[in-house]
Amino acid sequence: MRRVKLLLSYDGTAYRGFQVQPDGPTVQSALEEALSRLLRETVRVRAAGRTDAGVHAREQVVDFSDSGKLPTATIARGGNALLPPDIRILSADEVPPDFDARRHAREKEYRYFLHLSPVASPFFLRYAWHIEKPLDLDALREGLSHLAGEHDFSSFRGQGCSAKTTVRTIFAADLGEEAPFLRFVRISGSGFLRHMVRNLVGTLVDVGKGKIPAARVRELLSLRDRAQAGPNAPARGLFLWKVTY
Amino acid sequence: MRRVKLLLSYDGTAYRGFQVQPDGPTVQSALEEALSRLLRETVRVRAAGRTDAGVHAREQVVDFSDSGKLPTATIARGGNALLPPDIRILSADEVPPDFDARRHAREKEYRYFLHLSPVASPFFLRYAWHIEKPLDLDALREGLSHLAGEHDFSSFRGQGCSAKTTVRTIFAADLGEEAPFLRFVRISGSGFLRHMVRNLVGTLVDVGKGKIPAARVRELLSLRDRAQAGPNAPARGLFLWKVTY
Repeated sequence: MRRVKLLLSYDGTAYRGFQVQPDGPTVQSALEEALSRLLRETVRVRAAGRTDAGVHAREQVVDFSDSGKLPTATIARGGNALLPPDIRILSADEVPPDFDARRHAREKEYRYFLHLSPVASPFFLRYAWHIEKPLDLDALREGLSHLAGEHDFSSFRGQGCSAKTTVRTIFAADLGEEAPFLRFVRISGSGFLRHMVRNLVGTLVDVGKGKIPAARVRELLSLRDRAQAGPNAPARGLFLWKVTY
Repeated sequence: MRRVKLLLSYDGTAYRGFQVQPDGPTVQSALEEALSRLLRETVRVRAAGRTDAGVHAREQVVDFSDSGKLPTATIARGGNALLPPDIRILSADEVPPDFDARRHAREKEYRYFLHLSPVASPFFLRYAWHIEKPLDLDALREGLSHLAGEHDFSSFRGQGCSAKTTVRTIFAADLGEEAPFLRFVRISGSGFLRHMVRNLVGTLVDVGKGKIPAARVRELLSLRDRAQAGPNAPARGLFLWKVTY
C-alpha cells in the first residue's frame, strides 16, 4: 500500500460541502468516484478541513491509500480528466504511510472575502459577501485584534459541532485588501470549530456596522455561549486558503 | 422625453450576447424587461458595444429615452431590484437628448484574460481562457506591437460582420499582468469589428505558442483575408472594460 497526498482546489458553489452526505453531490464523493474509476480500486479520502456547503478551497489537502499501480503524476492528470472542472487536483505526491492530512496539519489559513460597494458586482456573486453600506474597518480590525492566542471558542461554534474540546489557538487574524472594494479577513490557526470562521466574520461585520463595539468580541470569547454571537456569514465568501504541515 | 445613460456590468455566461435574439435570454431583453416594468412604459436601449454570447462587461454603456417619471437614482436602485444578479446597473444619469451610446463613444477598451497554468483554476472557468503550456510572452508582445494605428482589419472580422468599412484605429495594444498566472491582452480603439478582439487574441496566442512568427500579425493585416487568421479565442475570456466619451 502507498499513501498519496493531493493538493486540491475547488469552487464549492455546486456542492453540499466536502464530506459525503446522504443527499446531493459533495466534493468527497466526486473525488472518490473519479479516483476509484482511475485506479480501479475503492478509494476513500481524508481531508485537512471539512468545508461546508458552498465554501471554496484554494488549497485543500487530502490523502488516501492505494496499491500504487499508477505513478502520482498520472493520478493528477488522469484524475483531472475524470473530475468536473470545478474540482482540480493541483498536485499528487507519495507521502509516508502514517501521513494524515487532518491530524498532521500544523496550521490552517482561511480567508473570508467582503465585497464593499453600494452595488454588487456580478463577478463576485459566488466568491464574496456583498455589503452595501460602508463598514468601519478600523473597528473591524480592532475586533480582529482580540482573536490571536489560545481561546475557548464556544461562542462561535456552529450547530452540530461535535468537537470534544472548544479551545483553539489562533496564530494570526487580520484584514487584507485585494482591491479598493474587496477586503478579506484572514485567520490562521491550529484548528477550527464547525462554522467558527463564518460566525467570527458575522460578528466582526456587526462590529464594522457599528451594531456592537469591538470589545464585544473579547467579551463573547469569555461568555462561552453561542446564543450571544452575531449571525453566521454566508458560505460563499469563505475559502480554505492554505494548509501547512 | 428624457435621455438616460446607464453604466452596466454583467457576467455574460448565462446570456446569448447583448443584443435581442429570437431564441434564449440576452442582456438587452433582460434589461428592457426590467426597465419597462419599473417605468411602466416600453423601453428600448442602445449599447456602446454589442457583446457576443458569453462575453462579459465590466463597464458597458447603454442609453434609452423615457418620459422622466422617476428620478435617475431610482432607476438604478429599482432596476437592480428587478434585474437578475448577474446584471447590475452601476449608475444612471440624465444626458443631452442627442446622446448616442454607440456613435458618441470615442474609445472602447477590451481586456482578454489568459489563465496560464498547467492546471486550470476552478475560479477562472467563466472568466479566462486556460492555456496549459507556457507561452512565449515576448513573442506575443511583439505580435501586439503591430496593432496600434489605423489598419484594415478584414482578416480579423467574424462571420456575419456587416460593417460597411473594415478600417479601425487601435489606440493601444499591450499585455497586462493580474497575477503571475493571469495575464490580459488590453486593446483600446475607436471601434471594433465583430469577433475582432477574439480573432486577434486567437492569432496572438498562436504566436505565443510558436505556431506562427510575430511578424505574421502585420502580414495578416495587409492580406485582408479572414481565412488566413488564427482561431477565434473563447468568449469567456473577453470583457468590455471601459467606454470613453
